[in-house]
Amino acid sequence: MSLVDRERIKLWALQKIIGPELERFDQVYDDLVRGDTPLINEICNHVKKGKSKRFRPTLLLLSAKHDGGIDESAITAAACVEMIHTATLLHDDFIDEALTRRGLPSVTHHWGPSTALVMGDYLYSKALDCLVQAELHDALRMLARTTVLMSQAEMMQIETKYDLSISIEQYLKIIYRKTASLIESTCEIGAGLNPELKDRAKIFGEFGSKIGFVFQITDDIFDYLGDERRLGKPTGQDWEEGRITLPLIAALNNAPESEARALLDGAKDLETEDRKAYWPEVKTFVMKHGGVDKARDMARVYGDEAKQAITPVARGVQKDLLAVSVEYVLKRLN
Amino acid sequence: MSLVDRERIKLWALQKIIGPELERFDQVYDDLVRGDTPLINEICNHVKKGKSKRFRPTLLLLSAKHDGGIDESAITAAACVEMIHTATLLHDDFIDEALTRRGLPSVTHHWGPSTALVMGDYLYSKALDCLVQAELHDALRMLARTTVLMSQAEMMQIETKYDLSISIEQYLKIIYRKTASLIESTCEIGAGLNPELKDRAKIFGEFGSKIGFVFQITDDIFDYLGDERRLGKPTGQDWEEGRITLPLIAALNNAPESEARALLDGAKDLETEDRKAYWPEVKTFVMKHGGVDKARDMARVYGDEAKQAITPVARGVQKDLLAVSVEYVLKRLN
Repeated sequence: MSLVDRERIKLWALQKIIGPELERFDQVYDDLVRGDTPLINEICNHVKKGKSKRFRPTLLLLSAKHDGGIDESAITAAACVEMIHTATLLHDDFIDEALTRRGLPSVTHHWGPSTALVMGDYLYSKALDCLVQAELHDALRMLARTTVLMSQAEMMQIETKYDLSISIEQYLKIIYRKTASLIESTCEIGAGLNPELKDRAKIFGEFGSKIGFVFQITDDIFDYLGDERRLGKPTGQDWEEGRITLPLIAALNNAPESEARALLDGAKDLETEDRKAYWPEVKTFVMKHGGVDKARDMARVYGDEAKQAITPVARGVQKDLLAVSVEYVLKRLN
Repeated sequence: MSLVDRERIKLWALQKIIGPELERFDQVYDDLVRGDTPLINEICNHVKKGKSKRFRPTLLLLSAKHDGGIDESAITAAACVEMIHTATLLHDDFIDEALTRRGLPSVTHHWGPSTALVMGDYLYSKALDCLVQAELHDALRMLARTTVLMSQAEMMQIETKYDLSISIEQYLKIIYRKTASLIESTCEIGAGLNPELKDRAKIFGEFGSKIGFVFQITDDIFDYLGDERRLGKPTGQDWEEGRITLPLIAALNNAPESEARALLDGAKDLETEDRKAYWPEVKTFVMKHGGVDKARDMARVYGDEAKQAITPVARGVQKDLLAVSVEYVLKRLN
């Protein structure tokens, strides 16, 4: 069984628990983004074809699930989280000049960067407006903060582009803001809309944050190891585009000074094409000096911390949430 | 006295009434956007050098001014409005590939499109987060809606690019969402934070909306007539970039069918360079068939409606607001 299959099955197991609510989520999401202008509809239909894994909505709905079911407010909140997530993907693809997304042409490539920019703005603002309308004050508070953090992270990535002196602390600060903070909000919002868990919502937030770290670190490892889910996407994209991630930072910390110096000297002032040519050396260096191993270890630690955070409060369906979703993000590494 | 001077003096007269509060506004605005990342600071300093006319903050603070002064909450709200306005300028400059803004290099030109995109996202999200933190619920509600409308307008502009069959109704719908809705919110928020005017805030919103129409229509007329404030910027930018605005729509409606047909045939499928070459014909057509006159008439009607809206509720400083700000936007046409 391929990695793709194994991973999908894990997620399906999670999603089976909340099947009807996920269907309702799809409806609510469609209704919210539909009908404003013809081009908005057209792009929404396109994005929908790309089939989101609905990882964040799944976590939110599982956190919100109580004995009486899942409240409609949680479904609305899940739709807003997914809109914000989609907005960041559109803007990310713009920044990275990505040609494809989820096996389809990216919006920036197909409709042009201006349209991708405006569509992202639309989804961001629509999500926040929807939270205001639905009077989901806590969700609004958390997601307003999160969108600030995410844009700060984008700016920090621009600031540290090509910067080989970036520390693990800076890297972790960036991925917290870029990825972990939204998953943190997602889980905290879900639990906050769960009458049985309302007072323990912060712990669900902590759980989500840790899961978010695992998620981003594994993504960054895939850029070194390759990953079948990426449909033949070559490794080294992060390196080429100047994103210095954990495996390389850890290898630089771990290597003898002379070898690190040699790598840095070779990488100095490279033009785009030369960066590509230099990639095999970077990859060899990272593997040799345990960069991927270190990143994998850190991902496991975050996974353990996620489990520890939620163990004292988990019960019933949240036990499944705990067991399966930590495994889901970690298993991507095996 | 030049048009620039006359216009500045009008605005100064308005701003003198709220001098200390505008100073406080500058401080609050600076504090809010400062300190997050070095690049954010750098860009904020650059944008600040470009000296905003602070038209929206001025309207908000004037609307909020009561016998006891202006509440701090209104100053915070004004800062948030200015952040949102600045965010739209950054994204607009990217879409229009503008080289300059307020006499300085545009952010997209100087730092690149990705940075302009992220900086816009940052200012948008920061403004909404700030409104949440300050618990300015009404302002948040209005501005969340307004940001949706503004992104819809951007999308509608992309949809109707080069479309010579656009109607006056469609044009008005776009400029309401793009320009008037933010000025509407601005005035309604200000009056809503004024204990003496709270119950008449909607009327101030209507006033702001009408002013917004005048503002955008005069801007679109300048693209035909030329305008010294634009520092030698040539006319015909809107035409070249495919924005079909009121003067041309009105002229097409007004011209004999054969002449309109001839213009449309000549304009069919033009490449960018050919659009530029065709501009003198477009301009001559618009002047001949009263497009600018019609646009000017409509601006005056909106100006009158603004006055009518606010006359029954104006008192004290709001009388100045009424007299000066309608004149301010209309005088730009003389």
